[in-house]
This record gives sequence, structure tokens and C-alpha cells, in this order.
Amino acid sequence: MSTTEIGRNLIHRINVGDSLTRSAWRRPEALALVDGDRRFTYREFNSWVNRVSHGLHRHGLRSGDALALASGNCAEFLVTYYACAKLGLVCVPINLGWGTSEISYVLDHSAATAVVVENEFLPRVHDALAATVSVVDIFLIDGEVTTGDPTLAAFAELASGSPDSEPEHVIADRAPLSYLYTSGTTSFPKGVVGNHAAIYLESMTMALEAQFREDDRFVAMMPMFHTAQLNTHCTAAILVGATIFIERRFDARRLLALIESERITQIFALPMMYSEMLEHSDVGSRDLSSLRRALYAMAPMPRHLIERCIEVFACDFYLLFGQTEMSPTTTLFRPEHQLTHTGAVGTPVIGVQAAIMGQDGGLLPTGDEGEIVYRSPHTMTEYLDNPEATAEAFDHGWFHSGDIGRFDDDGILWFTDRFKDVIKTGGENVSSLEVERAIYQADPRIAEATVVGLPHHRWSEAITAVVVPASGTMVDPATLIDKIKQLIDPYKTPKAIIVVDALPRTSTGKIQKNVVRERFAEHYERR
Amino acid sequence: MSTTEIGRNLIHRINVGDSLTRSAWRRPEALALVDGDRRFTYREFNSWVNRVSHGLHRHGLRSGDALALASGNCAEFLVTYYACAKLGLVCVPINLGWGTSEISYVLDHSAATAVVVENEFLPRVHDALAATVSVVDIFLIDGEVTTGDPTLAAFAELASGSPDSEPEHVIADRAPLSYLYTSGTTSFPKGVVGNHAAIYLESMTMALEAQFREDDRFVAMMPMFHTAQLNTHCTAAILVGATIFIERRFDARRLLALIESERITQIFALPMMYSEMLEHSDVGSRDLSSLRRALYAMAPMPRHLIERCIEVFACDFYLLFGQTEMSPTTTLFRPEHQLTHTGAVGTPVIGVQAAIMGQDGGLLPTGDEGEIVYRSPHTMTEYLDNPEATAEAFDHGWFHSGDIGRFDDDGILWFTDRFKDVIKTGGENVSSLEVERAIYQADPRIAEATVVGLPHHRWSEAITAVVVPASGTMVDPATLIDKIKQLIDPYKTPKAIIVVDALPRTSTGKIQKNVVRERFAEHYERR
Repeated sequence: MSTTEIGRNLIHRINVGDSLTRSAWRRPEALALVDGDRRFTYREFNSWVNRVSHGLHRHGLRSGDALALASGNCAEFLVTYYACAKLGLVCVPINLGWGTSEISYVLDHSAATAVVVENEFLPRVHDALAATVSVVDIFLIDGEVTTGDPTLAAFAELASGSPDSEPEHVIADRAPLSYLYTSGTTSFPKGVVGNHAAIYLESMTMALEAQFREDDRFVAMMPMFHTAQLNTHCTAAILVGATIFIERRFDARRLLALIESERITQIFALPMMYSEMLEHSDVGSRDLSSLRRALYAMAPMPRHLIERCIEVFACDFYLLFGQTEMSPTTTLFRPEHQLTHTGAVGTPVIGVQAAIMGQDGGLLPTGDEGEIVYRSPHTMTEYLDNPEATAEAFDHGWFHSGDIGRFDDDGILWFTDRFKDVIKTGGENVSSLEVERAIYQADPRIAEATVVGLPHHRWSEAITAVVVPASGTMVDPATLIDKIKQLIDPYKTPKAIIVVDALPRTSTGKIQKNVVRERFAEHYERR
Repeated sequence: MSTTEIGRNLIHRINVGDSLTRSAWRRPEALALVDGDRRFTYREFNSWVNRVSHGLHRHGLRSGDALALASGNCAEFLVTYYACAKLGLVCVPINLGWGTSEISYVLDHSAATAVVVENEFLPRVHDALAATVSVVDIFLIDGEVTTGDPTLAAFAELASGSPDSEPEHVIADRAPLSYLYTSGTTSFPKGVVGNHAAIYLESMTMALEAQFREDDRFVAMMPMFHTAQLNTHCTAAILVGATIFIERRFDARRLLALIESERITQIFALPMMYSEMLEHSDVGSRDLSSLRRALYAMAPMPRHLIERCIEVFACDFYLLFGQTEMSPTTTLFRPEHQLTHTGAVGTPVIGVQAAIMGQDGGLLPTGDEGEIVYRSPHTMTEYLDNPEATAEAFDHGWFHSGDIGRFDDDGILWFTDRFKDVIKTGGENVSSLEVERAIYQADPRIAEATVVGLPHHRWSEAITAVVVPASGTMVDPATLIDKIKQLIDPYKTPKAIIVVDALPRTSTGKIQKNVVRERFAEHYERR
């Protein structure tokens, strides 16, 4: 690589690491990260990233190599991510909800050659490593490196003794930055290849659309191993040079106190977290007036919840809708629509073109229901080593979301269901979400409900509700079915109601319908 | 090109044309362009662009071909630019201040195969074409096509009979979108190759930094053939889906009336235009309260002017600093600094890293003066067919601006002078701008002054001031020199003062020092 070629790359490239470099040059003394008692200015954060990047290079890691990252939310998580960006490495965040077999699969599939890990997760990673051969270095974020294991080193060692000069490596605009493995609803998770330009542009779009500002004070408490917290939130905050308060997990009391004490301006949480804060006894006594923006993700909020949120938090609410493959935000459900179009998922962001596609690959007119498809420079490169899944996802010149929805006359997108969660019963297609809404309406004592199609000799799939009663209450399936029948078409009414204590959820709180389906697969056969 | 390859490009690419497509899909009925009595929604604007794009394709234009555009500000200008973007053509805007020889040089150098032209400029283009061979099609925006010239066709014909479907061509992220020829201070102008990613990202940055919104109402009155009006202003407005009121030129009375009648929220003008509006008799009687942002470019405003602007226009003022090669904005002099750091050029925008470089290629510390250099994905691809100039501009892994400046302790950039305008006199380097400031201070009756170095047998270059007295006043060179001597070091004092009626300016109002230097080259020899 000639000096000229390196020089031109450094001048021109789109690189997520460069966005940190620029913030550090522009606002060196501004507060970047707060992690417990530790506070880092942009100068310190960038310098740390540069030193870790040089340290990883010293350990032999080279552009294109994959580095797995098994850690809860902490400063080191973001330092590792940006060090990868500046060195041209691919970061592979490990979902901390995974078991040994999933971790093992991902380490193997991504051909990770190094792992950065917190002590807490070291045993699981060690177990997973038994089945893989590629990993040669493990860097321990916390805890002491006391074993004689030559592959194990302290994360701190990467920075110590390294210069804090900017790493200068040739990295293409579309070079991979992350492999994010989607929580598998099929047998094996798929590795979503995220690239610098896609993630940089999505961050720009998000910062522009939700008006992120350099004087904003964000809380990062959703798992950083997920794209929403990592890319749409942290990378956009760092791009504009704002401050991030890192929390390991959501805690209603802590968060309410933090908003008051640190004059937090932006939070990002799940609907159930807002619900929990609203119910917390501290909510009335905390000063929440610093909040400008409240983002939420995963699902629309029911009307009573969003009304209460707007009243109590008194700031602008945005629902982020999208998926890992889109880096991830595709539509924003905006403050002005929260109460007029409650239940919708919003309008496309500036960087994304969204359309509804029919089964023949043609685009459908406004009002028609079909698969939501996208075009956007934010789109993933591909599924790693999976040309079949990639070709399927990119068929007909659009990215296929796997979501079903429609645009209304106001140009607002409504999400109907995941393709795979639509129930095919007696020749009809039924949206599981429509049935779920009817259940909540039929009996307010239902705390949680999920509706799936289960194998059935007559109906092909039988609509089945799995419900959790509110604590201290009971559910009579027959009575509930009668009530539901009065709200929706008879053929959409569940054939059976299964009462359970809890529903399986992903680490982001999403109900795992695939696990529900597997667990009760023989429900009708058994009968 | 396989269907799959086209499909993937359409999904992933960064393309300026796609930003219009997305705005038209998101806000079809929103007002996009107003040009006199003509009003176009985003649906209509996009449809027109698509039809023109298909029409150009029908005429044989293909990806990579260059199309010259000789037109004043009008809707057709933007339609042509976006039609080029969607077809993969390179748009070559013709500076309407150029003579036949410059137009001829640019048509030839860019190998333009088609020209879109307004009737007013057709004779000049025809004259210029005598010396070029590449142009095969001329499309006339206005006026009737009555000649028997087979190369001449009506611009309207491009759209008529074309479908309004989205053109689907493979266009790379870094494919060229424009050749912008810089007004030559050397013998031949250089063609700055702008690419889709650079221009798209600069537009995103501008929209983010100056908080462009979809409900903004912009006035485009600076020449669209310049990068500042075209890229940082129009492309960013179209990206967010705002409205652009197109004006052919600046007229203080018209603009003040337009701000009131159309509730304009954003204007972009030169300092002298703000000055003219402030002096206009209508300024007190017009309602200017709709203004949110006032952008200006070319030069900092003197303190009395910016103070008066803030008072009268009562909105946020931003100075855009940069150059065509950077697409163009590199720093923004922000509202909060206008009065505290009057005279500075601001802080780098989010997408740009700015530094000061010494003559040895090393970066200099804060406070030191040297060449302003940049790294940014907004940087041009290269100078067209000019590898020497490109290599020089990209030396040491930074883009060389040719500007001299320094950062102060607050991280704010101060522009000292253009490299080539620094005067080398008697072994010393003197900033021409410093001398100009002293002249204005020494005699308030000086309307305009420019300072250049002219060939001199003893001083190598002799500092020389060329001044225009305010109307009805006289200037005595000897007295003026004495007054200047009391303000600056003796060696910085002009050796001569030349009094003229007017100074030569570019179409953006910049004083052409190169023309001044040529005109008076023999001033000292003659003596």
C-alpha cells in the first residue's frame, strides 16, 4: 500500500471511527462518557480508543479480522467498538442471553480471532471456545489475569504502552464494521454484515431527524450488543459530540434519579420500562424537566400509556421502527402522530425509501397490505457466508423486511405482523397481533398475551393464545373465548387459551414466539 | 449488468437523486419548488426529473457522460441536475460570467456531449461550440426551436412522451455527479470532480448542523452554478423535503417582500446583500419574523454589520466557510460566536476534520499559523484530468485548502489569507487581509480596498493597495499611507495606493485579486 493510497483513503473515507476523531478534535474537553465514577472527555475517550487500536494491532489483528465482544454496557464496550472501526476490524458483539452453543456457533461462524470479555462472562466464553479454533487472544476487561493461560491478557494492557496517535489504516467506505447475529428464529442465527457507510449514514439520519445536539445528555441502558443502542443511539450521540451516561441495565428508581441529578435530555427505553417508571413511587418527586426527547422501540405503545408518558415526561416521544439489517431505523413514529395515529409505526426517515410489495414482486398502492420493503444506503451488506438468505432478502431490487404492513392515506406506516407470525388457518391468513389486541380488550386482567398458530390436523394451524394473568387474578379460557368472539371475526378467535406464569422473552424484551411455538407444538396432537 | 447487480445497487447506493425520490415518496403533496408563477409539489418535481432522465437516456446519454448546463436560476436547473444524478451523468454547470473562450475550454475539457441552455446564453454557447467536437445535443430551456439545426431540441421534449417511472441505472457511491470549474486564478480553470457520496454527506451535515426542517421555506437566489447555492443549500433543502423559492438574482426590495409574503424561514446571501437590505427603505415596514436562519458566505461580516443584522433580522446567523473542493462547507461560524469572536470563520462541521499544517507537512499546535488542511468524506474525488494538481492537493494525507489560518484557544478557526494572496516582500510574509483591515480603519471614506503584491525590483513584491473611494469623496495616497503607518508595522504599509472607480469581482462578489495583479503588473516597472 503506497503512502499516497493511504493518504487518499484517510482524506476521503466514510468511517465510523473518524466520527469520534472529529468530535475529539472539535470538542476535546467536552464530556463524552460517564460510566459510574469514571468520566472521560472526548480527548480522553479518543486517545483511549487510539491506544487500544494500536494494542490490538500489536497483538497481530489486521483489517478484516473479526473480534468478538462479550460485555455488559461499559466504557470499554464503546472503546472496543471504535478501536475496531479505526483498525478496520469487524466487531462481533455477543448477545449476553446466549448459551454456550450459540456463542460457540457465532465465534466459529465469524472466525473471530480475538475476544474482549468481562470476567462475568469468561466461563461461558471459555466453554464456547472448546469447540472453536480461530480465537488466539482473549482480553479481559475486569478482574485479574492470574492464570497461566497464554491466550489471556488484560484489556488494560492493550492501551498501556501504546501511542495515542491516530491509527492510519486503509479502510473502505463499505468495509464491514460489525457482524450482528440476529436472535435465531430458525435453527442458526444469521450474521448481519454492517458496514461503515451504512452505520455512519444511519447515525447522521437519526441525529438529523431527532435533532441530536452536542449539548445533549444521553442515557445508554439498553444492551449495547444490540444495534439500536449501539448504532442508532451511541454512534449518533458520539457523531454530534454529546455526552453518554452508561448504565448496565434499566432500573426505574436509578434512572429517575439520574435524569434529575445529571439533567438528562434524551432517553431510549422499551414501552414496559416507561410503564415501570410511571408506576414507580419516585416519579412524582423527581425533576424530569431536562428531558427533550424520549425514544422507544420494539412496539407501539397503547393509547393510555403514551398519553400518560407525554403527560408525565412532558417531552417529545419517538418510536423507532426497523431491524438490524437496516442499521436499524427505517421509520420514526413522530411526536405529532403519537396521539392522532396511535398504534402506527410512523413515516420513513430521510435516508430510507419504504414501500409495500405484493407476492409477485410488484409494489402495491396506498392502503394495500403486503410485505414492507426498503431501499436505503443504511442497508446491511449481506448475511455473512449465506448467499441464499442474502439473495432472498434482496429479491426484486428491494430489501425484504419480513414484516407485513400498509401505508394509510396520511402516508403513515402500520405494521400488521411478522410474515412468519401470520397464522394460516383454514385457508385464511390471520394477524396474530390483531388477535392479541382483542384479548387485551376482552379482559383487562390479562397481563401478557401472545398468539401463535400451532399444528392442527383440521385447521393446518390453530390460532392459540398463551396468556399470563395479572398477579392475583385467574383466567377462565371458555369465558375469555366468548368475550373475544364478540370483538373479532369467529375464524380469528383462538381455538384454545393456554395459561402460563411467564412468556419467554429476548434480551430486548421481545416475546419469543418461536419458543412458544416449539414449547406447545404438540398441544393439539396431545389432546 | 445482471438484474441482481442492478437490484443491489438500487438498494444500497448513496445517490443524490435518491434523496429526491425519498422526499417525493415521503411528502408527495408538499411544495418543493416555486419559480415565479410555477409551483411544483415533490411528486411533480420528482416525476419531471424522472421523465427528463428517461428523455436524456433516449437521446443516447449514458452513465459517465458529461452534460453542460448554462442557465440562470430556474426550476429546470434543478430538474436537470437531479436528472443527471438519476441517470449517472456528470453535470457541468457553466458560470454565466464566463466568456466564450472559458466556456469553450470547459466544454472541451469536460468532453460534454450535451448542453442544456437558456435562450439568453445560446449565442455564447454556440460560439463556444465552434471550437469543440464532443457536443451532439443542445436542449433549449426556453424560447422556440425554430432553426433547422438538427442538434437543437426543446428541453420540454425530453419530458414529453417519457414515463415517470424511477430510472434504474447502476451508479456507484463515488460516481462523479458534477465537474465544477473553479474560476481560474491560473491560466486554465480546474475541474473539481464532485461525487454522490461527498455531496450527499455534505448535505446531511449541513441539514443537521443548521437544523434544516421539512417545514422550512428557503430562497435560492445565489447562482446555482456555484457549489454553495447548489449543494449545501438546494440539495440539503430537497433532502429534508422543504420548499425552495427560486429567484434569478438578488434584489433587496423583492427579497424583503418575499420574506413577508411567503413566510420565508431561511435565506442565504452575501454580506453585501444583507448590507443592501438593511439600507433599503422597505426594511422597517416588512414583517421578517418568519426567519429562523440567515446563512452567509464568502467573508466574515464586520462587527457593525453583524450587530445590525442580528438586531433587524432577529434570527440565527451562520457564516459558511469552505471551498468547492470540499462540497463546500468545512466550518460554520455559529450564532453563539458571531459577537464574541467577530471576524473568525468558525468551528469544523461534524463531517470535517480541520487542522493547521506547517511547510514540512507536520500538523501545528493551537495558535500557530499555517495552511488549513482537511480530511472529510465530503472531499472532491480529484481535479479532472489533472493528476499533478490532485497529487499536490492531497499531499501528506490531507486536502490542502490553499488558505492560511490558525485555531485560537477556544477551538475557533481564523482565516488569515489565501496562500497565493500572501505578499512576499523584502524577505517578510505579509497578509493582504491585515493590510486591508488597516486601510478601512485608517479612512472610513474608503468604500472598497484590495491589497496585492506587485513585481518590484527591490522588494520582490511591493505591497500595493487598490482602493475605491466612497462616492463624492477623494483619497490622497500620501495622507492615507501615513495613517496606515500608525496602525501596522512599517514593512506592512503599502508602497503605493492606486485609486480606481471599481474593483473586478467574480459572480459571487469576490474581488478578483488575480485580475488586479495582472492589470497593474507593470505598475512599478513603468515608474
